[in-house]
Amino acid sequence: MQFSSALLENAVNEFARLPGIGKKTALRLVLHLLKQETADVQHFGEIISKMRSEIKFCHRCANVADGDICSICANSMRKQEVICVVENIRDVIAIESTQQFNGTYHVLGGVISPLDGIGPDQLKIESLINRVQKDQVQEIIFALSPTIQGDTTIFYIQKKIQPHTIRITTISRGIAFGGELEYADEMTLARSLQNRLPVESYVANSH
Amino acid sequence: MQFSSALLENAVNEFARLPGIGKKTALRLVLHLLKQETADVQHFGEIISKMRSEIKFCHRCANVADGDICSICANSMRKQEVICVVENIRDVIAIESTQQFNGTYHVLGGVISPLDGIGPDQLKIESLINRVQKDQVQEIIFALSPTIQGDTTIFYIQKKIQPHTIRITTISRGIAFGGELEYADEMTLARSLQNRLPVESYVANSH
Repeated sequence: MQFSSALLENAVNEFARLPGIGKKTALRLVLHLLKQETADVQHFGEIISKMRSEIKFCHRCANVADGDICSICANSMRKQEVICVVENIRDVIAIESTQQFNGTYHVLGGVISPLDGIGPDQLKIESLINRVQKDQVQEIIFALSPTIQGDTTIFYIQKKIQPHTIRITTISRGIAFGGELEYADEMTLARSLQNRLPVESYVANSH
Repeated sequence: MQFSSALLENAVNEFARLPGIGKKTALRLVLHLLKQETADVQHFGEIISKMRSEIKFCHRCANVADGDICSICANSMRKQEVICVVENIRDVIAIESTQQFNGTYHVLGGVISPLDGIGPDQLKIESLINRVQKDQVQEIIFALSPTIQGDTTIFYIQKKIQPHTIRITTISRGIAFGGELEYADEMTLARSLQNRLPVESYVANSH
């Protein structure tokens, strides 16, 4: 593509670096911004910069936060003794959107996957165990991807937690094998939270 | 969608205001940016703000420019006496990418469309006529959409320019390269029959 303005070209190139955005889409977005009020576009630019530089990760659950502790952990109306273990922030947003869960989260940052070089040490498993020991945790709900890596992670954490007498469950398999949490519709996701199963019965059923 | 961070939510909402970007795509883009270096994301934000606040429109052809005159109008190697009239900046970029045109442009900003409330006064027609009168323009090439509105615009401008003895042409309409005859619409096929070219000139041009 040939541009007659370096400013335009730079902006298009920046947008085209985003995932799933090609040059033509980037150009469309930039030309759209060009039609907006200058103040609005500057606001857009500032919001992006600010988001990256000021966002924090909750010291407790590793969810995104505006301060040291995320709004979910800081909310005294939420059951601190119930922890839903998820892979990433997107999963927290997906579960929150169902409005069916009143506990707290723990964002692992992925699942154990030796082939990708992700072992337990790369994930927030240590801090989860610490929470179980320190807080009066009564239940851990696993909401991980229904994959072998997800199952491995559940199994690993379950072994670590077993000395403590708490309830360990997984969300029910209303979600198709190989499907990703964020693409599940809210109804399915809500049902799978309501119908969560004890891990023993889950393991017994699936193997 | 429920977010646990206002910073994240604001950023997602800003992205979701872009055309063709829904909430889920916006979230994906924001989470991608969250994984990038802070400096890179700030650079991204600054490039966007700067683009909107500093970009100018060429006083001559209304194309985007970094200064008062765009790089195409300022280029003495380009034939200033040949003007290609287009609807928008995107068309300039498309034609420039062919590397087949060595004249200058005139960006109308749309086509005459009374139903959409766009009359000749909303378009850069006045400045085009001025260029024809002032500069030694020899040819005007219309590269507008092949629609009734596009044809109306060509007709309107042609009437205005007629006192001046210059060549007025349009880009040819016909079957696209790689296009199949049976899928072409009747209008295009009829036009391409009417405007058939001698094989010698076609072969001479295409090689």
